[in-house]
Order: sequence, then structure tokens, then C-alpha cells
Amino acid sequence: MSERIAYVNGEFVLESQAMVSIFDRGFVCGDGVYDVARSFNHRPFKLREHCERLMRSLKYTHIRLDLSAADLEKIALEVFNRNKHLLGPTDDYMIWIIVTRGLDVPSRNPLEAGKPTVVVYNRPPYFIRAKFYRIGAHVVLTSTRRTPPECLDPKAKITNKMNHIQAEFEAKMVDPEAFPLLLDLEGNIAESSTANFFFVRDGRVFTPRPKNILLGITRDTIFEIAPSVNVEITEGNFTPYDVYVADEAFLTTTSFCILPVSRFNGKVLSSNIPGPVTARLIEAWNRSVGMDVVEQALSHMTPVERAALP
Amino acid sequence: MSERIAYVNGEFVLESQAMVSIFDRGFVCGDGVYDVARSFNHRPFKLREHCERLMRSLKYTHIRLDLSAADLEKIALEVFNRNKHLLGPTDDYMIWIIVTRGLDVPSRNPLEAGKPTVVVYNRPPYFIRAKFYRIGAHVVLTSTRRTPPECLDPKAKITNKMNHIQAEFEAKMVDPEAFPLLLDLEGNIAESSTANFFFVRDGRVFTPRPKNILLGITRDTIFEIAPSVNVEITEGNFTPYDVYVADEAFLTTTSFCILPVSRFNGKVLSSNIPGPVTARLIEAWNRSVGMDVVEQALSHMTPVERAALP
Amino acid sequence: MSERIAYVNGEFVLESQAMVSIFDRGFVCGDGVYDVARSFNHRPFKLREHCERLMRSLKYTHIRLDLSAADLEKIALEVFNRNKHLLGPTDDYMIWIIVTRGLDVPSRNPLEAGKPTVVVYNRPPYFIRAKFYRIGAHVVLTSTRRTPPECLDPKAKITNKMNHIQAEFEAKMVDPEAFPLLLDLEGNIAESSTANFFFVRDGRVFTPRPKNILLGITRDTIFEIAPSVNVEITEGNFTPYDVYVADEAFLTTTSFCILPVSRFNGKVLSSNIPGPVTARLIEAWNRSVGMDVVEQALSHMTPVERAALP
Amino acid sequence: MSERIAYVNGEFVLESQAMVSIFDRGFVCGDGVYDVARSFNHRPFKLREHCERLMRSLKYTHIRLDLSAADLEKIALEVFNRNKHLLGPTDDYMIWIIVTRGLDVPSRNPLEAGKPTVVVYNRPPYFIRAKFYRIGAHVVLTSTRRTPPECLDPKAKITNKMNHIQAEFEAKMVDPEAFPLLLDLEGNIAESSTANFFFVRDGRVFTPRPKNILLGITRDTIFEIAPSVNVEITEGNFTPYDVYVADEAFLTTTSFCILPVSRFNGKVLSSNIPGPVTARLIEAWNRSVGMDVVEQALSHMTPVERAALP
Amino acid sequence: MSERIAYVNGEFVLESQAMVSIFDRGFVCGDGVYDVARSFNHRPFKLREHCERLMRSLKYTHIRLDLSAADLEKIALEVFNRNKHLLGPTDDYMIWIIVTRGLDVPSRNPLEAGKPTVVVYNRPPYFIRAKFYRIGAHVVLTSTRRTPPECLDPKAKITNKMNHIQAEFEAKMVDPEAFPLLLDLEGNIAESSTANFFFVRDGRVFTPRPKNILLGITRDTIFEIAPSVNVEITEGNFTPYDVYVADEAFLTTTSFCILPVSRFNGKVLSSNIPGPVTARLIEAWNRSVGMDVVEQALSHMTPVERAALP
Amino acid sequence: MSERIAYVNGEFVLESQAMVSIFDRGFVCGDGVYDVARSFNHRPFKLREHCERLMRSLKYTHIRLDLSAADLEKIALEVFNRNKHLLGPTDDYMIWIIVTRGLDVPSRNPLEAGKPTVVVYNRPPYFIRAKFYRIGAHVVLTSTRRTPPECLDPKAKITNKMNHIQAEFEAKMVDPEAFPLLLDLEGNIAESSTANFFFVRDGRVFTPRPKNILLGITRDTIFEIAPSVNVEITEGNFTPYDVYVADEAFLTTTSFCILPVSRFNGKVLSSNIPGPVTARLIEAWNRSVGMDVVEQALSHMTPVERAALP
Repeated sequence: MSERIAYVNGEFVLESQAMVSIFDRGFVCGDGVYDVARSFNHRPFKLREHCERLMRSLKYTHIRLDLSAADLEKIALEVFNRNKHLLGPTDDYMIWIIVTRGLDVPSRNPLEAGKPTVVVYNRPPYFIRAKFYRIGAHVVLTSTRRTPPECLDPKAKITNKMNHIQAEFEAKMVDPEAFPLLLDLEGNIAESSTANFFFVRDGRVFTPRPKNILLGITRDTIFEIAPSVNVEITEGNFTPYDVYVADEAFLTTTSFCILPVSRFNGKVLSSNIPGPVTARLIEAWNRSVGMDVVEQALSHMTPVERAALP
Repeated sequence: MSERIAYVNGEFVLESQAMVSIFDRGFVCGDGVYDVARSFNHRPFKLREHCERLMRSLKYTHIRLDLSAADLEKIALEVFNRNKHLLGPTDDYMIWIIVTRGLDVPSRNPLEAGKPTVVVYNRPPYFIRAKFYRIGAHVVLTSTRRTPPECLDPKAKITNKMNHIQAEFEAKMVDPEAFPLLLDLEGNIAESSTANFFFVRDGRVFTPRPKNILLGITRDTIFEIAPSVNVEITEGNFTPYDVYVADEAFLTTTSFCILPVSRFNGKVLSSNIPGPVTARLIEAWNRSVGMDVVEQALSHMTPVERAALP
Repeated sequence: MSERIAYVNGEFVLESQAMVSIFDRGFVCGDGVYDVARSFNHRPFKLREHCERLMRSLKYTHIRLDLSAADLEKIALEVFNRNKHLLGPTDDYMIWIIVTRGLDVPSRNPLEAGKPTVVVYNRPPYFIRAKFYRIGAHVVLTSTRRTPPECLDPKAKITNKMNHIQAEFEAKMVDPEAFPLLLDLEGNIAESSTANFFFVRDGRVFTPRPKNILLGITRDTIFEIAPSVNVEITEGNFTPYDVYVADEAFLTTTSFCILPVSRFNGKVLSSNIPGPVTARLIEAWNRSVGMDVVEQALSHMTPVERAALP
Repeated sequence: MSERIAYVNGEFVLESQAMVSIFDRGFVCGDGVYDVARSFNHRPFKLREHCERLMRSLKYTHIRLDLSAADLEKIALEVFNRNKHLLGPTDDYMIWIIVTRGLDVPSRNPLEAGKPTVVVYNRPPYFIRAKFYRIGAHVVLTSTRRTPPECLDPKAKITNKMNHIQAEFEAKMVDPEAFPLLLDLEGNIAESSTANFFFVRDGRVFTPRPKNILLGITRDTIFEIAPSVNVEITEGNFTPYDVYVADEAFLTTTSFCILPVSRFNGKVLSSNIPGPVTARLIEAWNRSVGMDVVEQALSHMTPVERAALP
Repeated sequence: MSERIAYVNGEFVLESQAMVSIFDRGFVCGDGVYDVARSFNHRPFKLREHCERLMRSLKYTHIRLDLSAADLEKIALEVFNRNKHLLGPTDDYMIWIIVTRGLDVPSRNPLEAGKPTVVVYNRPPYFIRAKFYRIGAHVVLTSTRRTPPECLDPKAKITNKMNHIQAEFEAKMVDPEAFPLLLDLEGNIAESSTANFFFVRDGRVFTPRPKNILLGITRDTIFEIAPSVNVEITEGNFTPYDVYVADEAFLTTTSFCILPVSRFNGKVLSSNIPGPVTARLIEAWNRSVGMDVVEQALSHMTPVERAALP
Repeated sequence: MSERIAYVNGEFVLESQAMVSIFDRGFVCGDGVYDVARSFNHRPFKLREHCERLMRSLKYTHIRLDLSAADLEKIALEVFNRNKHLLGPTDDYMIWIIVTRGLDVPSRNPLEAGKPTVVVYNRPPYFIRAKFYRIGAHVVLTSTRRTPPECLDPKAKITNKMNHIQAEFEAKMVDPEAFPLLLDLEGNIAESSTANFFFVRDGRVFTPRPKNILLGITRDTIFEIAPSVNVEITEGNFTPYDVYVADEAFLTTTSFCILPVSRFNGKVLSSNIPGPVTARLIEAWNRSVGMDVVEQALSHMTPVERAALP
């Protein structure tokens, strides 16, 4: 079988046949939550933590699912195991889990929605962004601000990404490969569209407080591994000035783990990519997952592409 | 054929077989827009205006669709006409149009999404809420505020409804049939979850300014018909006090047109439903659509239910 | 009888013996509302409107009083009539009505409070401020902002005046006779501590929108009488700049009706007091109440004081 | 003597005869401050700290009292001692101290107010809420936000409670026994109407930063006693999501000390009341005051009521 | 004499010798105000209005100048007349007037500053932007927001332009010739860096309310001339959505009067430049100043440049 | 030579002849940054840190200077050394460095500005404020708020001081020698016009978080020296209440280092100047700079002035 399978409401089906009703509230009105884990060396990483965060997103959104975190983890593992045979030696999978409130019938009243829809699927990590490990990402401030908790809490992982998508478009006006950086409504640096943001100054690492951002599991892991390479991380309320005068910066997310940033709003932050502190954290990361995530990503580039990197 | 059909990406299919891929960005991340029209007496009402508003939502969200408002209207009419034979004499349809950015491949980058997905379907108006025409709706303030335009503009009709859905849950804690009323972040009365809000004091009608609300086509129609019954409408920035001391209030939306409000935050605003000014507007509405929308809705109740109404 | 009487919960008592329990929620926690009318030439002015506004304050604060506006007006008139014999020919009364939620027993739960307390009394208008009709008031911006409606609506007249009182102290640091001018949280000019604010530029009158201010009955009356002297009034969102560059300004309140402003933040706005537009409005006011309110106030000064005026 | 006495401006009078003038600014315009201590086992607890906090409230509100914290404490003790003989073995008293700016004469100008009014009285703790120690309180978010410091500082204990009272009414719409939870204007969890709020996650305790809340003396005491039971408390800016996903929560206030929370916005947080961390803090509390405050409260229920508890 | 002269503190000097002290507070700390008029056909336009607005900026900033608007106008005219002989037939001048608080001695205390500095000079209008009359300007939203009035009032024209300059840099990241569009802190469209913003929808013209913007004299003139070409202009609070869905847009400023906008955030608004409504206003403008301002600007392009225009 | 020299764009000139063009963007539109160091005992203090902060201000404002911090330090030292011979034994210098974007030609476009202007000069510290070391400063809250980072970041030292200057005027309305205290837009205590603010309660020192303030080098130094005198400093979000109830307060700035505060908003905070904690910090300061800065300042008073001090 050369096609991956997906799980849809109790069935394991070929991805090309994995469908949901047009009346699913996830499709009709974004009434769902999701979470995304990945594997390293074909071993899922912190999958249980991702399932537990999903349970918290469900609690926040009042979606009543009759599965536990353990149940979801079991399903996700089965999908992963069924697709594992398609992985090449340097491949890995992301593991997506989506839960919606179910069918939008008989009325729009969310109290009357059907049984929740559960979807699980795999997908390769974004190796297509591999070059940024060497040239660094370009991060751009947007006029779009992160939705505040009194409207919809950024800590919950909800399939309402249009706020982030609008920011993507703004950043990509400046540079089609740029990553957006959103401020919260209080003017603090918040997060990128699917990544947390860190910066380095005078050897110390800083990152936004957890009020108006997703509490990334990669972000948590950075806090866990930092002491092993003598890196101190401080949470605070930061403003664009702090980033303009930073020595290094990086993005963290499930797919690419730690991605060095070279430019902010068109200005070079650091021409040495990764910067020394970022490099230590990448090392610690690699140790903790038992493989070199940068090398893995770069191995997916063509030799010509790779030769062109600094 | 006793089942309605729907339009999905160029095909007309039975509703029960109308599906989208689990990789559709509408499902995965709420990356879509929508609009909803309805018919009166089996004639679609302002369908073109709804298609034009949908085009504006597409423009705002940077979704590039190669169809015009006229094209969408034509598709929507064809769906409607194919389903018309299933309408009983007092039935009518809502006409849903959903457009998403297409498949979420190869990456999450919205610039790389596939061809937009277009879905059109019909559904009966919410006659299940018919009793509120006689007993009045209960409207409840929520702690959830309407998402502000610097995050995502409430004027665009986007399939990111979780902000409204959270408000629904809060209102329904107070009364399982209550409708939420959201403030904007400046503390002004904004809108209900799928309806605009109006109130009456000393014979004049007031409604929120169009900054932080959906610019409802029903709302527009109220402005058009009001002069015919000598009703003056003023837009402004209003606060909960204004509603507490109002004489009447009503909600407007595509499905139920004008729904009288009897209670606000547990307090009776008006025991006479509909109030005199609301009644004149309902009359004008009925004239403009050529039928009695209240009578139509009530006709879907059982005789016993109907007898129990005031 | 040379002492005024007051009404306290159904009794008419001498002011010196007019008391409420220390357990009254009005005393214990400011859980009350009030309104203040006055007489001109011994005739109460718009007393019914004041009673109706009080009923609105009660509605907003969920205080359940078993009296109507008409009942309150009747009581207030009786108090006034019983005290009328003490008025000299150039005297008049203010008419205070206070209603609280009653006794704070058995618990602090406002749902369990006793029967509302009703107090009515008279007091002379603030003739002690008469000189400002000739020298103009000094108005000073404060760092204290007006409480916003999402906390407590400025349109309701509530016995929670500490916000205004803090502003009084700030203004009086600059000048012991200054009047505060509070901004709302959006940075708009809002109101003084017990007065609405108006300013004049190029012959037109401007005053804050009714969102974050008390809807003064004197303010309403200004709108009513302005056309009679060809004065156009525009509501808007104004900022300190607008006042710095104004030609004239004035305060309105029940007691002194229209009080010209000569200085703003220590700067002379207009050395000619009252300015020409303010003067026309005072004229119109005097006509509408059938007496010269300025002359009445000035008549309470000593001849020496009066001679010292410009 | 079977009636308690109260102190009013230098006099000790029976509570039923304890009165203040209707012209007292505390009654007329909420121009006062207050504080509330209580006794445990007939011994006042931290009475001096309460008097000192009252002195700070006076400083903030520019009320000039010619008594010191020590003077107030002495008066409060005398009131307590005069009423002590009425206490049964399981009874205790709350000790209320109210200071207002005095009489509202000759004008509303707070600089011209009379001598401050001082009132002290006793009242039983709210044993009527005893059952919540066993079934847990229901806490509900309100649309009413806590007044911000630029309007009136929540750290000062002022007899302007209408902001809290409005929130009480909103919470009690959902459940007549619910406690409100107010957000501040920045969207952070702030406080309940007369209680501070804490929650527990993964064994750690969290509570709002002291910016927009009353700095409760019970709250301070929790910080003092927590180390004795190995509980770590972290202050931060928290949002509703944090409470939805908490394991336990509790309210703290002078009267009931520590009250477990079982439900938040209609959702069960913890069915085990008190939760394990809350239980440890209650234990530590009991040790620090030398009695079992839960048992004391429960002893005031009827045997039937008590039998009905879980 | 082939060099223009400038006025500096009472002297007429060659521009190349026009200097101010390094201790001038205008240089040291931006402690100054300014205004800019221009001529059409060698005749200064509304120069007196500009001088009067400058007087208002002085009043707001507490700079005490012993010159009146008439005095300033006279000086400005003299500078203009002395430089007029250098104007070619299609040339014109901008007329800059700068007034600062004077020397920063003996201390930074603004109360102790010296005599104000007055500078007047001429400069050609920005004919270098002529091509935009034909290809339309590109307007880009920035993350930088317009400074709010509680910090520094945008209505006053102050030599503190760094807020606007930061926005310029952001817009020019997207397109080196783009013009920034700043939101105010309430999320409303405010203004460009030195220009007001208007847009057209369905034949009507809209422009931001005057709260958070410079009250442009060109903007005022647009209001004056619009009726002559049957154009209705409405002020309001607008958001990015409104601009995305506009039919036309234009910028107004002293130098280029009315500049059509073709693109907003990278999206084509109107490919027909100028749009029909903009064209009518340009016509009306040309009539009111007695010359064709577009033709004048284009005449400064080389024939090759001009031929390249659409 | 009895006149100081200054550095202007590569030249060393007499201060009286130190001029910049009227077209310099620093003068025309405040388009510059600056920094100010001082000497103690004729030795510049942390001059390099000031130059490095200036480099950060340049980075933030996109001014491209072809000098490094080391180059600037060298120039500044040369100016200092050339002026040193004019210092009396108890004199010292402040060292001002101003860098602007250069000439405002050919257009206002900041991308097209000329080469940056660099100015360095000396000036005596503000010994004229010496008396405040003994009588304490009076600090006054203003209605003017500190400009927020989304408009212009307070961390960058920009020659746009009008926001602070407006606050100066407000404070000086209350007392011509008062220092302003600005809140940020979130209602937190921020900073004075050219000084950071600290206060003391119960022996601990508190100061605003670094979000909305200048990161003073004197402030940094206070953090460095505090442990040497066992003083603990906590950063936080503070409100006016915190200052009203403080035991001591002080201002820090380059010129006067640590200035005790005796009054806040007209109220005496501490009659004992300096308070005990402030005194310890002044001692530590004097040790760290090797001289008694208070004695130095006082030595510039006349014997009569000095005798009048407490």
C-alpha cells in the first residue's frame, strides 16, 4: 500500500478517500479544536502531552467528547503505526488530530450539535523550509494583532486560524518567505502564526509571557532542556525595540523544532546562523530527541540546493 | 427524489453524499468564508447582494476565486431550483454558500493552498424558533467580547465562529433558549451570535454603528423599509444601560427576519410582544417580501404548541 | 417652624433628625441611586423627568422599588411644599431624592436586602459659586478617568461618587476653586464631577457624545433651547486640543444651570465672561425658566463681594 | 443586654438605634472607606493589619481622620469586647469599621466636608454559606469588569460597591447561589465581589497579580501559611482558559477564610471538595487561627441540612 | 541672486547659511511646531489658515510667541516674495513655518526656555511624486499606530515626527514607494504619514473622523469643494475591511493636493486611475485654485518618463 | 579659552558658533536620537554604555550611522577633554550626544535623507535643583500618558520630547517646581519626564517594569549597587495607590543620580528627607562614583540658600 491512511470517526481510510460531511461544524463554522505532534526517528514525541492539551482545548470550547487523552493517544498511535512502513530512513511524520462538534443539525445551536467528529492523519514535517536552518528566517511585524482571550483564548488550539492567516499575508507582502510576528492588543510581542518566538540578548534568552500565546509543547521543551546547556530563559512583556536590538532570535514549533531567525523587519539581527545560544539549544534539542533534526531536514534538499547554502 | 442536493466543487450531489476532504483548509483551520440567503414564498431574496458580500469577504481574506458574484448567484439558483420541488406551500429555504481556500497542501502556507472549494446547499429556516415571535427572545450579555477588527474584521463573514459559539454557551448558562449579546472591546453593544440587535426608546429605533458588527443584509433592509412605516433609526455607540431602559428590542437575521426581544439579562423589557414599533417594522417587512413571515413560522408549530402561545 | 423637613421612608422629619441606619446599604456600600432637581421662582423644574431618570437608575441597578415615577414626584412635591415657606423671594431649592437597596441584612447578598430606603430633602442651590458667572470657572484635566460602562455605567446616577471625588482633589491641587474635567478611557473629554461640559468654536457649540457621561437634564434642556437663539450644537468625540483652542466653554448642571468657563488648564480661554454664545444660551435659559438665574445667584453675594466682580 | 452595640462617632449605642444623618457623605455619595476583620474563637485576628489597611484607604481618598490605626484598633476592640458576652461557644464576630468624609455641607465640595464619621459594629460571619465548604461554590464570569485603577483603585476598600453588586446580579442570573468572577479591563481574571480567587493546577497554586484586585488580608495570610504545607503560590495574569482547565479553585475572604470552588461557568472543576491542595491550605489555616473554621461553620447548620451534605 | 533666502529669527539669510543653534530645543528635543502652505500659480493658498492653525499648535504646546497669525503671515509672504523671482512658469513653492520654544538653557525646564525661534523657508512641491497621479499610490497598513491624544494630540502639528517616520519605514519594506496607513489605538483607519486618507464606495466618499488625525487644510478644502461636483463625504470610524472593499481611494496633502491610490496592501483597488469620483474632486480642486495641479506636476517629468505613464 | 567647544559633524567649534542647518531633520521633524552621560570628579561615568544605548536607539529608528559605539565614545571623550580645563574643583559635565538623520532633502522621504548629523557638547549637571536633595521633590500625576511602544518605543531615546514636555506643564500647574509622573496607557506608573521612578514600602524598593519606560543607565546602576547596602528591588506594575501609601520615593537620572521625593500629588510621603532606604542607596552611589554627589550639588548653592535648607 503506497498511500497513507487516516482515521475518520472510527474508520481507517485512505487519505484520498478521507472525507467529512459539508455539514460538519468544523467545515461550516470552524467549530473544532486540533493538536499536532511529530515523530523523531519514527518515534512519536510527547504524543500524550499533545492529547492532553487537546482535552484542555475541548474543555474550553465545551465540546463533549466521550474519549480520554489515553483513547486519543491510542488512535493516533494506530494511525502512525499503520503509516510507518511508508517512512524512509530520514523521514518522520507529523500527527494531526482534529475534533469538531459534529454535524450542524438540526439548527446552528451548538447545544444541539451531533456527536463530535474525530480525525487523525499523518503528514511529513515541513522539510521544505530546511534552508532556513542555515540562512535564518525573516520575521516581520504585522498590523494584525493576536486575538485576545476575552474574544477567544490563544491558549486553546482552535481551528479558527484566520487571524493568523491574515498575518501571514501581511508578512508575505514584505517577503514571500517571511514569518509574521503578531503583537497582542497590549502591544507586546506575542507569537508567529504557528510558532512561538524567542530572542537572545547578552547571552540570555527571552520569550513572551504565556498570557496571549499558544503554550507550545516545543516551547515547554525548550524550558526543560535549556538548563542542560546553561541557558537561562526569562518570560516577560517585550516590545519591537527589544527585538530590534536582540543578538539572536528563533522560532519554535512542532515541525521544525527550533528555527533560527536572521532578519527582523528587513534588518539583519545576526549574520551568523545559528547564533551561539541558539546553536546550544539546537544541540540540546537533538540530544533530547536522539537525532539531528537539522541534518534530517537538510537531507531532504537536493545536493544543488544544499551546496548553495552558507 | 426525496433528498435535497448540494453543490460541491462543480458537482451536484445528494446532501448525504456531499463531502469535503479532511485536508480542506475550511475543515483543518477554518480558512473559509460564507454567506446565507433565504427565500420567501419560494423566491430567493437579495441573493445577488449576498453573493456580492461573499465576494467582499473573499477579497478581505485574500482567497482568489475565479468566479464572480453573478457566477455564484447562478450556481446558488440552480441548487435552489433543483431542491424547490421538495418545498411544501409554507416552506422556504435558506441558501448557504461556503468558499474555502482549498486543500492544505503541500504546506500550511496559505499562498500555496490549492484551488478554492465551493459548496452550496439549502436548509429550512429556523422555524423551530417560531414561538419567540409571540413570547419574545431572551437576550443575555456575555463576558465574551466580539473579536475586534485589528484581529479579524467582524464585517467579513468568516467560518471562524468560535468567538460567537463561546458567547452562545455563556448565554445558555442563564437560559437554554437565550440569545447572547456581545459587547465590542470598547464596551459598546455589538451584536448577537448570528443576528444584529436593535432597540426602541420613546418611539425611535437605535442600533450599533457598523464598526464592530456584521453588516447584515436584513439589517440593511430594515433601514430601507423603516421610512415606509415612519420609523426613524439612529446608529450609535450604546451601552448595557441603554438596553436596560429600552421600551422594546429585536434581533434581525436572514432566517427569522425580525425577532422581538422580551427580556434582557433576566429583566422584562416589554411584556407586549411584539412592541408597537417592532410590529410596524414586521408589517413593513411582510409587505416587502410579499408574505407573512410570522404566520409562516407559526404554521410549523403543532396546534398544541400554538395554542400555548400568548 | 424654621427648620426644613425631610422625607425618610414614609415619615416627614426635621432635617436635624433625619437619619438612616448604619446598616443601610446606601451607607455601608454605596448601594443606592439618586437624582436632583431644583426650582426656579419657587416652582420645581422638570421634576417628573428627574423622577423618571431615577426610575431608570433603579432599573439598571436592579433595585426593586414599589413606587412609580409619579409616586416619587408626589412625595418630592410634598417635601418641597412643606419647606416652601422658608424660602426668601430670591431663594430656591434643590430637591434631592435618594433610593437605596435597604438594610444590609442578613448577608451582603444584594438579593436578600431589605425594602428600599427612600429619602427626599431640599437644600439651597450653590449660590456660593455665584462669582463664577462673572469671572468664569477654571476647568482642569485630571489623571483620573471616568469609570467606563463595562464597570459601572456613567448614565446611571449612582451614589458611588468616589471616582468624581478623586478628580475633584486633583483639580483642586491646581486651584482650590477649579472644576475637574475627566477624560473617558478612550481619551475623549467626558464630563466634570457633577456637570456636563460644552465648548464653543467659530460660533458653534460642541459637547461630548452621550456614551461615557451622565445624560444631564440640564444638558437636554440646552439642546431644547438652543434653536431659539440660533445656536447649533454638535455631539462628538473631543480631545484636550479641542478645548485648548476653543473660544468659549461652559458647564451645565442642575444647580447653576449654565456656568461660563474662563480658564482651561491654567490658560485663559476667554477673558470676556460670559462669551457671546454662552450669553445667548443663558438668555434662552432665563426665558425658559421665567427668571434671571445669574441675577438670582449674584443677589446672594454681599455688596462688597459683588462690587469686586468684573 | 441582648442586643449588640455599635460605635457611632464617639458614642456606643444599641445597633437598633445606631444611625447616621441622611446628609452623611457616606450615604449621599458613597464617600467613605471601610474594612472588615473577624475573630476566631472570640479572639480578633489581625485587627491591627485591618486598621492599617483602612488608614491606607483614607490616605488614598484624601479623608483626613484625626485617629491613628492604634486608635481605631482600640475602638474596635472595645466594641468587640462589649458584644462578646452575646457570643455562643461556636460563634464569632466580624468587625466592621466604616469611615466617611462626614456631612455633605455646606456644598458638595469635598474640601468643605465636615469631620469624618466613624462607625464600628459587629456581625456574625456568613455561616449561612457553610454548605459550600462541602459542595463547593459555583463561580461565574460576568460581563461586568472590575473598575480600573485610573478610575478608582481596587486596592483601596471604598464604600462604592455597585461595580461588584452589578457583577453579583449577573452571576446570580446563572445560579442564585453563584459567586461572580470579574475580569479586569485587560482581560485578566481579577477577583470575586468580596473575595480573592485562587486556582490549582498540577499541584501548584496560582492567583492574580495585585494590580487590579483588593489586597486581601486573608490572601496575604494564605501566602504566609502555604510554605508550612509545602504549597507554592505563583502570581500571574490569568485568563478564563486557565480556570477552565484548573484542577481545583477556591475563594478567600475574611468571613469564610477559604471556600472551595466546585464549578466554573457551569462546568465541574473538581467533584472532590475540597480538593487535595485546598484541603492542605484549610488545615494550615485552622492551625494558624487555632480552630477548625469549617467545623465551626457547619455547626450552624441544622442536623437535617448537615446530613444532606456530601 | 540664484539662491533662495530663508527667515531665521528676524533675519533674511541665504538658505545655505540658514542655521540654528545646536542648543535650540527644536533640535535638542523636538520642542517645536510647524505648518506648511503652498502656492498655486505663484499665489499662496490659504496662507492665513495655515498661520492660524500654527497658532493653535502653539497654544496646545504652551509655547508663548509674541507674534500673531497676521504677523506670521506677513513674514511668510515676505519670504515668498523674495524667492518668487526664482520660480519658473510651472513652478510653485511650499511655505514652511517652524516655531520652537527657543534655547534649552539654563536647564531642560520648558518654563525656563528662551525666546521662541521662528524659521520660514520655501521649497518646491514634491513634483518628484508626479507619476502617482497616473499610476496611483500604493498604501500599506503598518503595525505602528498613530500616537493617541492622551499622549500627544495628532491635531497639533508638532515637530515630533518619529511616529510617522517609523510607519514610513514599515510601508517601504513592502514597496519602496509605498505610503503608510496608520491605525489609531482603537483600530480605526487614521492617516498616512503626511497626508489624510479618503476612500470611495458606491459613489460616496468616506474619511476618518477628526479624533486621531491632523485636521488637514487640504482635507477641509475637499469638504468645501465636494458639493460643487455633487460628491457627498461622510466621516466615520473605518477599518481595514472598508478599504479592502473600496472602489477608489486617495490621499490629500498640501503638496500634491489629491493623490489617487491604486493599491492597498498589495491588492489592486482600482486599475482606472484616477477613479471617477476622485477625478471629479481633482477637477473641482483645479477650478478652486485656478490651475491644473496634475498637469503642473507631470510637466516636471522628462518626456521619456511621461511617455512611460499609462 | 573661556568658552566650551562642541563637536558638530566632524568639527570642533565654540558653543556659541555651533549651529545646524534649518533643514536638518532633527530640527525640522525631530528625526533624531540622543544620549546623555555625565562625569563624576571629572571622570566620565559609563560613557561607553551610553554610546551603546545610542547605537540601539539608532537601530530602532533606522538611522544608518557609519560610526560605532567606540567611535562615538572617542569623539565624546575628546569634547570632554577639550572642555575639562574649564571645570572648577566641584564642577562636572554632562555629555550630550545627538545624532539626526541629516538633511531633509530632496524630499521628506526618510530613505532619501542625507548623511546623519552628529553633535556632541557638554553642559553642567542641574545643580540648580540641589535643594531637592534636602527638601525632597514634589511629584505630580498628569493626565498626559506616556506614549506606548506601538506608537514610539519609550525604550529608545528619541528627540521627540513633546509628550514629556506636555506632562511637565501639567505638573508645573500644581507647583512650578514639581516633577511630572506619567502613567502608561495600561494605567501603570511609568516614569517622570527625564527620570525613572522608585518607591519604598516596608523597607523594600519597587520600580516599574521595563515595558513602557526608558531603561535608564542610572536605573541599571541602582540595581547593581543595591545589594551592597542590602536593598531588594522588585519590578512590577504599580498604580497611584501604591505611591500614595509608600514610605519613601525617589527619582533617578543621569544629572542628579538619586533625588528624594517628599510629596506626591500634594501629600507628604515622608518628612524625613532622604528616607532611610533612599539614604542607603545614595551612600552606595557615592561609593560607586567615588564622591559625594549631594555635597557637590549643595556646594553650588549660596551660603544663604544653603542655610535655609532643613
